[in-house]
Amino acid sequence: MKKEIRVLLVEDNSDDVIFILNVLKAQKNICNDIDVVTDGAEALDYLFKERDSGHHYKHILPTFIIMDIKLPKVNGLEVLQKIRADERTAFIPVILLTSSTHQGDLINGYKYGCNSYVSKPIEFEQFAETVKNIGLYWSLVNETPSL
Amino acid sequence: MKKEIRVLLVEDNSDDVIFILNVLKAQKNICNDIDVVTDGAEALDYLFKERDSGHHYKHILPTFIIMDIKLPKVNGLEVLQKIRADERTAFIPVILLTSSTHQGDLINGYKYGCNSYVSKPIEFEQFAETVKNIGLYWSLVNETPSL
Repeated sequence: MKKEIRVLLVEDNSDDVIFILNVLKAQKNICNDIDVVTDGAEALDYLFKERDSGHHYKHILPTFIIMDIKLPKVNGLEVLQKIRADERTAFIPVILLTSSTHQGDLINGYKYGCNSYVSKPIEFEQFAETVKNIGLYWSLVNETPSL
Repeated sequence: MKKEIRVLLVEDNSDDVIFILNVLKAQKNICNDIDVVTDGAEALDYLFKERDSGHHYKHILPTFIIMDIKLPKVNGLEVLQKIRADERTAFIPVILLTSSTHQGDLINGYKYGCNSYVSKPIEFEQFAETVKNIGLYWSLVNETPSL
């Protein structure tokens, strides 16, 4: 592995967090490092607050972000818009992973600049396969600028 | 397979066209239907000209587009901007698959709205694996609105 992969997972459902972490961490050498935040406000703090404070911050920016839409405090679509509006985070791939099947969420997800929209499969094995493919694709196949 | 997958491949290098087609078509039931155009002007004709003419057109819009950047007649980044500017094609995932390693192309690719940027691996087997992963991810994992 050449590059260091850092993943930010934004998910409020603790069962889903555990499940997704288990699947991603089982892929040796793909997702070396995964941080979890459980609401939209925490996601914004993680990405911006420490940087804006001018102090030394503990997080490097993530290689990609897996984010739910229905989140406490600040909705995923609102977080996405703020990510796209800031030049430090504008090009970080955002994968919306959600149980929402509303066409409106799908349309707004793309309108606000998600790179990919993925429905959480209900069936256990298919969910694992989907998460595995997300980890593989955005860790090893896709490239982003090194800003 | 539930959904009908149509792929548009925009690539001027005939060796790469044959290679990519072979890899995608080997994935049974994933990419049912692949159309190839070999320059940027042809890509724009394929996507817009027949529709704009008001006549019956033979192509349904693709599920996703795999496109090179260095293309004859109209550059891939210019085609990408036109795809994003038209509401009929604005949400179609565009994967830039290119041998360009310029940071400028990478930055402009994301700035103009590509969903993913992938460097063509030089090594044969890795190139096959990469194309396979692109086919799998954008056919089976990702979702787009049905407009």
